[in-house]
Amino acid sequence: MPGNTFGKVFKVTTWGESHGKAIGAIVDGCIPGISLCEEDIQAELDLRKPEQNSKIGTSRQENDVVEILSGVFEGKTTGTPISMIVWNKDAKSEDYSKIKDIFRPGHADFTYETKYGVRDYRGGGRSSGRETIGRVMAGAIAKKILKESKIKIIGHALQIGPYKATAFCSKQIIKNAVKCADKNIAPKMIQYIEKIRKDGDSVGGIIEIIVKNMICGLGEPVFDKLSANLAKALMSIGSVKGFEIGLGFNSAEMLGSENNDEFYIDKNKNIRTKTNNSGGILGGISNGENLVLKIAVKPTATINKTQKTVNKNKSEKEINVIGRHDACIVPRLIPVAESMVAITLMDHLLMQKTII
Amino acid sequence: MPGNTFGKVFKVTTWGESHGKAIGAIVDGCIPGISLCEEDIQAELDLRKPEQNSKIGTSRQENDVVEILSGVFEGKTTGTPISMIVWNKDAKSEDYSKIKDIFRPGHADFTYETKYGVRDYRGGGRSSGRETIGRVMAGAIAKKILKESKIKIIGHALQIGPYKATAFCSKQIIKNAVKCADKNIAPKMIQYIEKIRKDGDSVGGIIEIIVKNMICGLGEPVFDKLSANLAKALMSIGSVKGFEIGLGFNSAEMLGSENNDEFYIDKNKNIRTKTNNSGGILGGISNGENLVLKIAVKPTATINKTQKTVNKNKSEKEINVIGRHDACIVPRLIPVAESMVAITLMDHLLMQKTII
Amino acid sequence: MPGNTFGKVFKVTTWGESHGKAIGAIVDGCIPGISLCEEDIQAELDLRKPEQNSKIGTSRQENDVVEILSGVFEGKTTGTPISMIVWNKDAKSEDYSKIKDIFRPGHADFTYETKYGVRDYRGGGRSSGRETIGRVMAGAIAKKILKESKIKIIGHALQIGPYKATAFCSKQIIKNAVKCADKNIAPKMIQYIEKIRKDGDSVGGIIEIIVKNMICGLGEPVFDKLSANLAKALMSIGSVKGFEIGLGFNSAEMLGSENNDEFYIDKNKNIRTKTNNSGGILGGISNGENLVLKIAVKPTATINKTQKTVNKNKSEKEINVIGRHDACIVPRLIPVAESMVAITLMDHLLMQKTII
Amino acid sequence: MPGNTFGKVFKVTTWGESHGKAIGAIVDGCIPGISLCEEDIQAELDLRKPEQNSKIGTSRQENDVVEILSGVFEGKTTGTPISMIVWNKDAKSEDYSKIKDIFRPGHADFTYETKYGVRDYRGGGRSSGRETIGRVMAGAIAKKILKESKIKIIGHALQIGPYKATAFCSKQIIKNAVKCADKNIAPKMIQYIEKIRKDGDSVGGIIEIIVKNMICGLGEPVFDKLSANLAKALMSIGSVKGFEIGLGFNSAEMLGSENNDEFYIDKNKNIRTKTNNSGGILGGISNGENLVLKIAVKPTATINKTQKTVNKNKSEKEINVIGRHDACIVPRLIPVAESMVAITLMDHLLMQKTII
Repeated sequence: MPGNTFGKVFKVTTWGESHGKAIGAIVDGCIPGISLCEEDIQAELDLRKPEQNSKIGTSRQENDVVEILSGVFEGKTTGTPISMIVWNKDAKSEDYSKIKDIFRPGHADFTYETKYGVRDYRGGGRSSGRETIGRVMAGAIAKKILKESKIKIIGHALQIGPYKATAFCSKQIIKNAVKCADKNIAPKMIQYIEKIRKDGDSVGGIIEIIVKNMICGLGEPVFDKLSANLAKALMSIGSVKGFEIGLGFNSAEMLGSENNDEFYIDKNKNIRTKTNNSGGILGGISNGENLVLKIAVKPTATINKTQKTVNKNKSEKEINVIGRHDACIVPRLIPVAESMVAITLMDHLLMQKTII
Repeated sequence: MPGNTFGKVFKVTTWGESHGKAIGAIVDGCIPGISLCEEDIQAELDLRKPEQNSKIGTSRQENDVVEILSGVFEGKTTGTPISMIVWNKDAKSEDYSKIKDIFRPGHADFTYETKYGVRDYRGGGRSSGRETIGRVMAGAIAKKILKESKIKIIGHALQIGPYKATAFCSKQIIKNAVKCADKNIAPKMIQYIEKIRKDGDSVGGIIEIIVKNMICGLGEPVFDKLSANLAKALMSIGSVKGFEIGLGFNSAEMLGSENNDEFYIDKNKNIRTKTNNSGGILGGISNGENLVLKIAVKPTATINKTQKTVNKNKSEKEINVIGRHDACIVPRLIPVAESMVAITLMDHLLMQKTII
Repeated sequence: MPGNTFGKVFKVTTWGESHGKAIGAIVDGCIPGISLCEEDIQAELDLRKPEQNSKIGTSRQENDVVEILSGVFEGKTTGTPISMIVWNKDAKSEDYSKIKDIFRPGHADFTYETKYGVRDYRGGGRSSGRETIGRVMAGAIAKKILKESKIKIIGHALQIGPYKATAFCSKQIIKNAVKCADKNIAPKMIQYIEKIRKDGDSVGGIIEIIVKNMICGLGEPVFDKLSANLAKALMSIGSVKGFEIGLGFNSAEMLGSENNDEFYIDKNKNIRTKTNNSGGILGGISNGENLVLKIAVKPTATINKTQKTVNKNKSEKEINVIGRHDACIVPRLIPVAESMVAITLMDHLLMQKTII
Repeated sequence: MPGNTFGKVFKVTTWGESHGKAIGAIVDGCIPGISLCEEDIQAELDLRKPEQNSKIGTSRQENDVVEILSGVFEGKTTGTPISMIVWNKDAKSEDYSKIKDIFRPGHADFTYETKYGVRDYRGGGRSSGRETIGRVMAGAIAKKILKESKIKIIGHALQIGPYKATAFCSKQIIKNAVKCADKNIAPKMIQYIEKIRKDGDSVGGIIEIIVKNMICGLGEPVFDKLSANLAKALMSIGSVKGFEIGLGFNSAEMLGSENNDEFYIDKNKNIRTKTNNSGGILGGISNGENLVLKIAVKPTATINKTQKTVNKNKSEKEINVIGRHDACIVPRLIPVAESMVAITLMDHLLMQKTII
């Protein structure tokens, strides 16, 4: 059953395997007349590259270069499908032959094999993190259009392992390798990842996404609530295990009298809420306040440690994958998460146009 | 834009407002030849009724009686759409006239008004909790079919306010008004809700859903991951503010070596995992272990306390809704959450049939 | 697999069997704030009733009365699903018990049985002409909104058996029982149907649909061309065996130099075409000229003549269904065809709003 | 609004413009484990090439070479999206600059401009016949899988201009440049096209598609009837103006007693019909008889004759496009039509798996 398409109006389809010829995305339903060039997309794509000179990322060189193949003419979108492609260059297939028949713990090897009876075992195939290239390319287009409506999406590392940011300064985010908005915590996170990396281990974290200058009225009752579609969008990213909006799980201990966001009229005569416990959504529809979302990221499944597992022939085995990997995927997932939020918002923005 | 349909193969559409004539659901795509009668659905519907003699629920008498209008012939499903209806009987419209122009904090009044420019203000209209009747009716059909595959869905109140269950005995769940699996905590939860209720306030909680006897291979890469669709399904329920699978947000502090579930061969020669940190899903596809999901429920927005708010004409007002409401919606949301899980699983089960 | 929904933005779902409790339709995605009442829908529904005092229709009394159950509040649509229902009153189940196991030639009995292994055999069940009630109810809403944009849909009987209209006067259509726009041919058509009816036989025909005051730009490349979706819409009506737009099959013998519609500037400074061989669509997108569509309708399958057939147990049998039926379904299909055109146009009108 | 995807389970998305970098297609939902290589697709693609040494086709050299970029591993489909690409090599952009602002009669220039406000005017952009490359690539996969179920799709030129085939011998089809199954008519068709071509004109025709060894039970009530989806599939091809199944428009003059296909039991104990007036579909569901479909193809819009038209600035102009074009597109559309039938059948075949 097809599952590689997201969205109803701003429709994104991705394709490609980690070690196949290329990775790609199609955006169908993009509004015409938008200025768009490869640099717009490349800039976003570069954000998901591993830190080249850092000790925290994979050593795989991913100089992913985007090419736009259709849907843009004389620098403008035409309303027809925008096809984008990135060729896989640095794929070392030989690394993977020895794990052809074995199921790596924490990976999708076993489930893909069981589901399909066949799989591209090289680098995780379709379940590889490289699949997110398609999301970032499509997200770049969505972000560009949203920016024209002043909508701004800010993702940052709220927590890595036991280290939690307690301050928020958006300018800090691009200044450190972990994209943390708290300048005091960022170095501790980096130090911690380096240590974990040396141990051959990995660690998870929490990403927060804030959307500023939101438009009121986005979200469709009852199943296509904005919050429901954002949850799907973000939970569809590999390694994401939890989603919260507003107070999220902390709502459980709140009283209604504390949790309800009271309305008031601001100086610009707009209806606003005094608090934002709801995270910007009431009844599944945006209320104009900032969206505040959190996602939980599990530690990377690939580790340089011996683990017990089984193979296709149902024999128990040991595995120790000494290869290139990220000790903490959180920083590289931030642009991916931002992209999924952008795609979802873009989709709902266009949906809303059908009723006004 | 239409948003009242969920699912691709087992497709559920709901309709109806709190104080309209009726509430209904259509299931299109149900397999033919399944025994089905109104009692099957009524039994599930009764589970979402307020506790009649309890002090924790709303005093609204909801004797919701289901009628099947199509798609079932001589006691069997025919493969054509199953239309189900519940008439709204106890709707007291007069209660709501005074809040016609005012936006209740924590409710969808303001966002519906902004989105549509018009709304049925009686009892929350389409955003009312009564909308979940449609979900439960459709879920009842899904549950019945899943049961034939031995798949069992168990929801329980894991936390209400500050009280957390620490033991799990599934037999306890139906023995107490809060559907808690911990017999020691259940009375404390009930006592707490009663107290909150007397204060005119409300409280939230956490629901856990466990799915036993899962089939391996459900979930579609990459956007229709089982985890992503479960997140959407559950986040589409009003009042739900967070979703977790497996360790959820606790994954953030885990190391890969702790978090990866090692595989082994069990005595029946099945591939299993020793731990279930993943909550039964790898790469978005079920691995045959129990699904373990959690959702955060915010405190009911309706409270008997004076709150500051605004009206349609942008004047600041005070509001105190003295009416029937649930001080804690958690127990009544459990069958709704189970239904959404059942519908999602049913949908993925049928999807999987297209590739085998 | 669900197939009971049509449209992407203006989404229509129908349900119900000929002899079940009721027939219904849900419209999800209707714009809010539209004045709508049951009379609007009833008026359209009455158009598909059999001619009560005529000799050409079925003698089944179908006093179908519509009830709106949701989505309309204080006389206006709210943007939430509009649920409409018609109760089946005059269903005589006893008529059908003797054909329970036999497959009527020209009917869907055999294919439903083969597809599903079970079926509601009473009156054709879901494949009955009564299913079109749902289409007409939804079409009534679409027509009402289109009328506000001045878009007018005119259906008429172009041919019945060997009798072809050669003149077109729209005022004539409602003046005769066959809805023919040629006052000289109409009586001949009626006489012919009466004769065929006395013989226990049935006859087919051709319906033409003209859409005036069309908007330019409707239709989505490449699979959702307006012409493709109109073809699907009309071919989805039972008994329809052919579809043409513009010159249709006559295009085959045309030269390009004859067939191309040359453009000119009219006195209102609009770009128009001198001829309308294309039927109002170029490259799948409306060009503002009248839509001109034709559909071929096969003779009603039910006839009062002995026919050879088989039963479920693969025995050859003879069948002679002496019952109520229409000797020519063309007049009653006209409002259905108009409804499907209205729904399709409404859907494309809302689609177009997403790009402007 | 996105319109570049066809199908629900076997989902085909195409992209690309005539003079853009490339043309492509994605198939999502293909069953895993199918042997597939580029030669399988290339063979079909070659069938839509212009006749290289003939006097009837365009002189544009289209050596379209397919490349599979994903979804196939070690010669087998993996169940993940199959991305296919053909690079545009022989696109002479300079030919088109002079028609940048002018609307060619019979083409989509005017409607695209009106719809989107912007368009790739080179060679018709997205509305070019080259778009059908994507359909043929996807169709090649569908055909290959259908062939394993013995389902065979045969398209042929039934009529070109005034010349109608009266005999049918399937072996003749590949023996002549017009793909006519009547060896006596084929040379007349060719001669006629050559004459028309010399005149700088073009001509239309009728294609018939026969599907042999059909499976019973394909088609979903009520809107996704097999006939409705086939109509949409074929009407979505540029230049197609009419669709018929079985007797099509000839049904109009039939009596029910003539038109109904009587059932009998054949020597293999199968339920069959004596005649096949229905064209293999009853109530929208296949009955196991051959599918018999016809489509009307209009004469190619591009002609080497002076035509009156208008430009973007609403001035009346004359146009004479001296360029490469097909005087009759019918032979090249046959593999495209076959592909759309194959894709539709494949989709319904997989849909049917969800209910059994």
